[in-house]
Amino acid sequence: MKKVSVIGATGYAGAELLRLLYNHPEAKVVNITSESHAGELISDVYPHFKGIYDMTLISMKEIKKIGEESDFVFVCLPHGHAMKVGKALMDLPVRIIDLGADYRFADTDVYEAWYKVEHTHKDAERVYGLAELYRDQIKSAKIIGNAGCYTTASILALAPLAQKHLIDMSTIIVDAKSGVSGAGRGAKLPNHFPELYDSFKAYGVATHRHTPEIEQALSDFSGENVVINFTPHLVPMSRGILSTCYATLKDGVTAEMVDEAFASAYDKEFFVRLLGRNTYPATKNVRGSNLCELGWHIDNRTNRVIVLSAIDNLVKGAAGQAVQNFNIASGFDEKLGLDMVPVYP
Amino acid sequence: MKKVSVIGATGYAGAELLRLLYNHPEAKVVNITSESHAGELISDVYPHFKGIYDMTLISMKEIKKIGEESDFVFVCLPHGHAMKVGKALMDLPVRIIDLGADYRFADTDVYEAWYKVEHTHKDAERVYGLAELYRDQIKSAKIIGNAGCYTTASILALAPLAQKHLIDMSTIIVDAKSGVSGAGRGAKLPNHFPELYDSFKAYGVATHRHTPEIEQALSDFSGENVVINFTPHLVPMSRGILSTCYATLKDGVTAEMVDEAFASAYDKEFFVRLLGRNTYPATKNVRGSNLCELGWHIDNRTNRVIVLSAIDNLVKGAAGQAVQNFNIASGFDEKLGLDMVPVYP
Amino acid sequence: MKKVSVIGATGYAGAELLRLLYNHPEAKVVNITSESHAGELISDVYPHFKGIYDMTLISMKEIKKIGEESDFVFVCLPHGHAMKVGKALMDLPVRIIDLGADYRFADTDVYEAWYKVEHTHKDAERVYGLAELYRDQIKSAKIIGNAGCYTTASILALAPLAQKHLIDMSTIIVDAKSGVSGAGRGAKLPNHFPELYDSFKAYGVATHRHTPEIEQALSDFSGENVVINFTPHLVPMSRGILSTCYATLKDGVTAEMVDEAFASAYDKEFFVRLLGRNTYPATKNVRGSNLCELGWHIDNRTNRVIVLSAIDNLVKGAAGQAVQNFNIASGFDEKLGLDMVPVYP
Amino acid sequence: MKKVSVIGATGYAGAELLRLLYNHPEAKVVNITSESHAGELISDVYPHFKGIYDMTLISMKEIKKIGEESDFVFVCLPHGHAMKVGKALMDLPVRIIDLGADYRFADTDVYEAWYKVEHTHKDAERVYGLAELYRDQIKSAKIIGNAGCYTTASILALAPLAQKHLIDMSTIIVDAKSGVSGAGRGAKLPNHFPELYDSFKAYGVATHRHTPEIEQALSDFSGENVVINFTPHLVPMSRGILSTCYATLKDGVTAEMVDEAFASAYDKEFFVRLLGRNTYPATKNVRGSNLCELGWHIDNRTNRVIVLSAIDNLVKGAAGQAVQNFNIASGFDEKLGLDMVPVYP
Repeated sequence: MKKVSVIGATGYAGAELLRLLYNHPEAKVVNITSESHAGELISDVYPHFKGIYDMTLISMKEIKKIGEESDFVFVCLPHGHAMKVGKALMDLPVRIIDLGADYRFADTDVYEAWYKVEHTHKDAERVYGLAELYRDQIKSAKIIGNAGCYTTASILALAPLAQKHLIDMSTIIVDAKSGVSGAGRGAKLPNHFPELYDSFKAYGVATHRHTPEIEQALSDFSGENVVINFTPHLVPMSRGILSTCYATLKDGVTAEMVDEAFASAYDKEFFVRLLGRNTYPATKNVRGSNLCELGWHIDNRTNRVIVLSAIDNLVKGAAGQAVQNFNIASGFDEKLGLDMVPVYP
Repeated sequence: MKKVSVIGATGYAGAELLRLLYNHPEAKVVNITSESHAGELISDVYPHFKGIYDMTLISMKEIKKIGEESDFVFVCLPHGHAMKVGKALMDLPVRIIDLGADYRFADTDVYEAWYKVEHTHKDAERVYGLAELYRDQIKSAKIIGNAGCYTTASILALAPLAQKHLIDMSTIIVDAKSGVSGAGRGAKLPNHFPELYDSFKAYGVATHRHTPEIEQALSDFSGENVVINFTPHLVPMSRGILSTCYATLKDGVTAEMVDEAFASAYDKEFFVRLLGRNTYPATKNVRGSNLCELGWHIDNRTNRVIVLSAIDNLVKGAAGQAVQNFNIASGFDEKLGLDMVPVYP
Repeated sequence: MKKVSVIGATGYAGAELLRLLYNHPEAKVVNITSESHAGELISDVYPHFKGIYDMTLISMKEIKKIGEESDFVFVCLPHGHAMKVGKALMDLPVRIIDLGADYRFADTDVYEAWYKVEHTHKDAERVYGLAELYRDQIKSAKIIGNAGCYTTASILALAPLAQKHLIDMSTIIVDAKSGVSGAGRGAKLPNHFPELYDSFKAYGVATHRHTPEIEQALSDFSGENVVINFTPHLVPMSRGILSTCYATLKDGVTAEMVDEAFASAYDKEFFVRLLGRNTYPATKNVRGSNLCELGWHIDNRTNRVIVLSAIDNLVKGAAGQAVQNFNIASGFDEKLGLDMVPVYP
Repeated sequence: MKKVSVIGATGYAGAELLRLLYNHPEAKVVNITSESHAGELISDVYPHFKGIYDMTLISMKEIKKIGEESDFVFVCLPHGHAMKVGKALMDLPVRIIDLGADYRFADTDVYEAWYKVEHTHKDAERVYGLAELYRDQIKSAKIIGNAGCYTTASILALAPLAQKHLIDMSTIIVDAKSGVSGAGRGAKLPNHFPELYDSFKAYGVATHRHTPEIEQALSDFSGENVVINFTPHLVPMSRGILSTCYATLKDGVTAEMVDEAFASAYDKEFFVRLLGRNTYPATKNVRGSNLCELGWHIDNRTNRVIVLSAIDNLVKGAAGQAVQNFNIASGFDEKLGLDMVPVYP
């Protein structure tokens, strides 16, 4: 039984982590923190926890003590803040799973360019936490930079094609759509209910911070310096991400080679549900679960492949993947606490 | 480990039952049936089951064989059909949990008057399956007539007040609101997406079939012949029921007496979450879980009590309660397979 | 052509008023105000106005000048603020239509008790602005206290029965449901998109400020001192209110007498759509329009009548009724600017 | 005053047409047809029309008579059926605006290849009815093949760049998202409310029939034989389309040249709302109106331009454009009946 703490438990990712950890047979939540709600019960901040989690939120000012009491610390803070936690805990045996961006980049210059903050923990021993693709490194990592939501959906969709060199890496376009929980729990006019209901729009066109994260992974797998277009959109729903990914096939690439790339990458992956060619995912099919659904189409008219992937942004795109990484890092069965049926309809 | 079968597995209640049974440590699903999809995989009918439940649906024509292979049979059929299953299985040791209306009524005349079909199994040994209130009878019942969705929310809200004789039973009004999954999976114009989205309406005003079921239970608890008004409404959402229940307090009844009635009825009930006076439930707080949230208000201006209750119509209002009844009937811990956090947001 | 100004144009009611006035052949918008956005274009605050209304918002500090330039001033301010505008404009010939609560009550003690602010304009000559029921007074009023959203739906549903003395006025319960635009445009956690989506809840049970407004009107029409229960709920949709109203019929009252009461009250009313007995309204049927749909049911089992009414809260419940009152007060055809088809689906 | 008839008035496009025509000062609806509802009132099929349109639906078997009584016939039938109407009316002076696909293609081979039906009216004198781009031809056309919904959004987004030769026409990808009303009013499981709510998915990937329609127009404007990728998605909302269009800029093309292409194409177009560079449309900003919002971004990292466009699929994408074409063909001001504010929120 591992003792775990959640730093920043009152955001949606933190709350979802608590939901998943509740049914994890080998994890015990020992501390949960919030700066704005320190001293309150988590069930006062999230009434759905009443009677289930009536723990008191504490301040992360006591981070050292929290680190000493924990085998793992999950960090659910805005970017720029996890670095401080990471540095503070470097000398303790506790391991860190950061759900934010601070530890996702091998090249901190890229981080600094896109996130507009100085990286203060550049020498941290860290790995990128996309479980299916970086499993071996995750096993022993001190700090795991849990993959982002859009990025998980997009990288899982394209990595097999990149790795097998089936696509022209300069032609990649990722058109992604997310439910509103991805924007966090902070109330702001753009996410006010009547403003979004019965509406659809894009945001952060070609400037969203998940762009370099996708590029980093695809560069890793292709061995090329990949630059892509990434366009996020906001869907009037709570949960779910669908990524529609386009790329031009290299000469001579057949549909069977594409099928085979996905099969060899994911056939043994419990959390990747391959729908195959000409069958397409829906976010509802994975809602509430750690699954990623993948389907694809080969368009002979344009010689492009279109790959579609769906995840629950709060599970496989955040808390579920964090638990999966925790399982890998702990040597547990990867499915512990995550083996459940999507909530449908 | 009990062997269980699901008759009519392709409706929303049947599918939800499969979701819950998947994580039940003492249940093994041995047969699932569908007349319209016999021979198909359940995962072809519900893609979210792919890789999780890839069982083949069979016809219930083989009901005897199914009964012999099962310790429990869950029946998820339209009213009028479960009776046939019940009669067919009377001589086998298998026990039956019917999620429909056929076995909910002690007085089959009431059933026939409201459901407009002949009851063909009037002498069936049966109990009403609202777990918290009929637990003792459920333990040993051959047939459990699982309580309905609106009725579960409404009876849990009013039974303590009826039992303690705190309210004038002739003044009860239940104004209830349900998500659209309560209408089933059959595609019809009124439930076509654009017809309901951004709209709200009532239906079945004073004629809905859950009326006599609520009346039966409240008559049981009050010892009076109770007649109520019940008005269902359709909320443009998938899951959840909220019941707003009104009744006039008897002379001399205090707020504390009301509080005490709820406390004594439910303080030890894991699945009833008492919010107390002047705090109100939200369906999102219980979504995906077997919980029922209750809050109430005493209005001194009108001398009425208003009780509000929220459930997930597919869980506590159908499949979850069925599993809870299964646990009771099996002598298991009532929480088996149902001890989980609501899916929020 | 009347010159009109909108004080507080950046709330949802103000914006809806601008939408309706755009197609009004006898109104010209001369000033629009906002304290928080003074100096900005309304189309920067509401992008849907771009190219249609590119007027500059001014401060209401210049209220005298605005009053001098206007034949009518529409006030869309939080309660407590319209009184200041009213007082400032008393000596000018301009007429005032207040969409808030300040001028809705004949008895300012009631206002002060429910709104918890001192009324500073008690001697204002004013009328209650529910067009169908107070038309004659509206014609010549200096100040029109435009009826509220819930109250319009509820009073239109019950006034004919009160007036004809068909119901026991002590038994009235109004269970009302509103889309989220009724809560205004201020971003707050409870109205943050993911918090409300796929959820339903009540609020302000027996304490909502629209209660005394309904009571005032029903007392007017019945000649009795009416006290009711009123329960508002929040529907996860943008627009629309449905009120479900219950009352016990007096002895000897027949269904035909109820039908006749509605017919005689509303047969000539363009904006009241009588569906008749056993047919029920839906908010979608009136969305975007100034219509109020009414349907009712007589329950012989309980001797109650249930009346259901649907409006668009921003139109008949706010801006549309304001325009209707403006038409009445101006001697125009009541339909000017309001004769349009609901937006369906 | 033109006499107009609507063939197939009970689909969503037909009903929306009736909504718009109600406020058109120069159109009088003389006949409305429906085969499945002939003899019924349109207000029985669509209750929101009650008291507004209580016309009786007739069968189109009397098409000749209808044609004789009408100056214009709007055809809202499934593809394959409008051809029959067109042929039947060839010898009458009546003009035809077909909201379906039958008359959209100059090359009927393309139509037959994508729609899998024989074209039986190949020699029909017809024009493509995208008002802003084919205005001159529309003025005098006998038959106007009203542009489709996805296609209107997509062509308006890309035509200026094609016409000015600013983009590599072989690199075009259109990723489009639509509300569910685009799928029509026929109730089917995939569009059953609970199946779509809180879900997002693609469909018809690279095979949707709007593909060749976009290609035809872009070929027209570029002078090249254009082949594109088009991917439609279903958004859990009622109305609205957003198209996200990608293309690689030709060498030497600057942001200013892109801006200028849009300005010169649309600066005088009332229904095209140019948001400019780095500002993005939302479907809510145009809901209920005939507007098309356009915004764009130049990505220097990939040398691509991303153009986003939003329309209301039932208005600018169907009925509104039909009225606009009717105005053009009648020599009316193009805004007649269409000069209104979007319904927000």
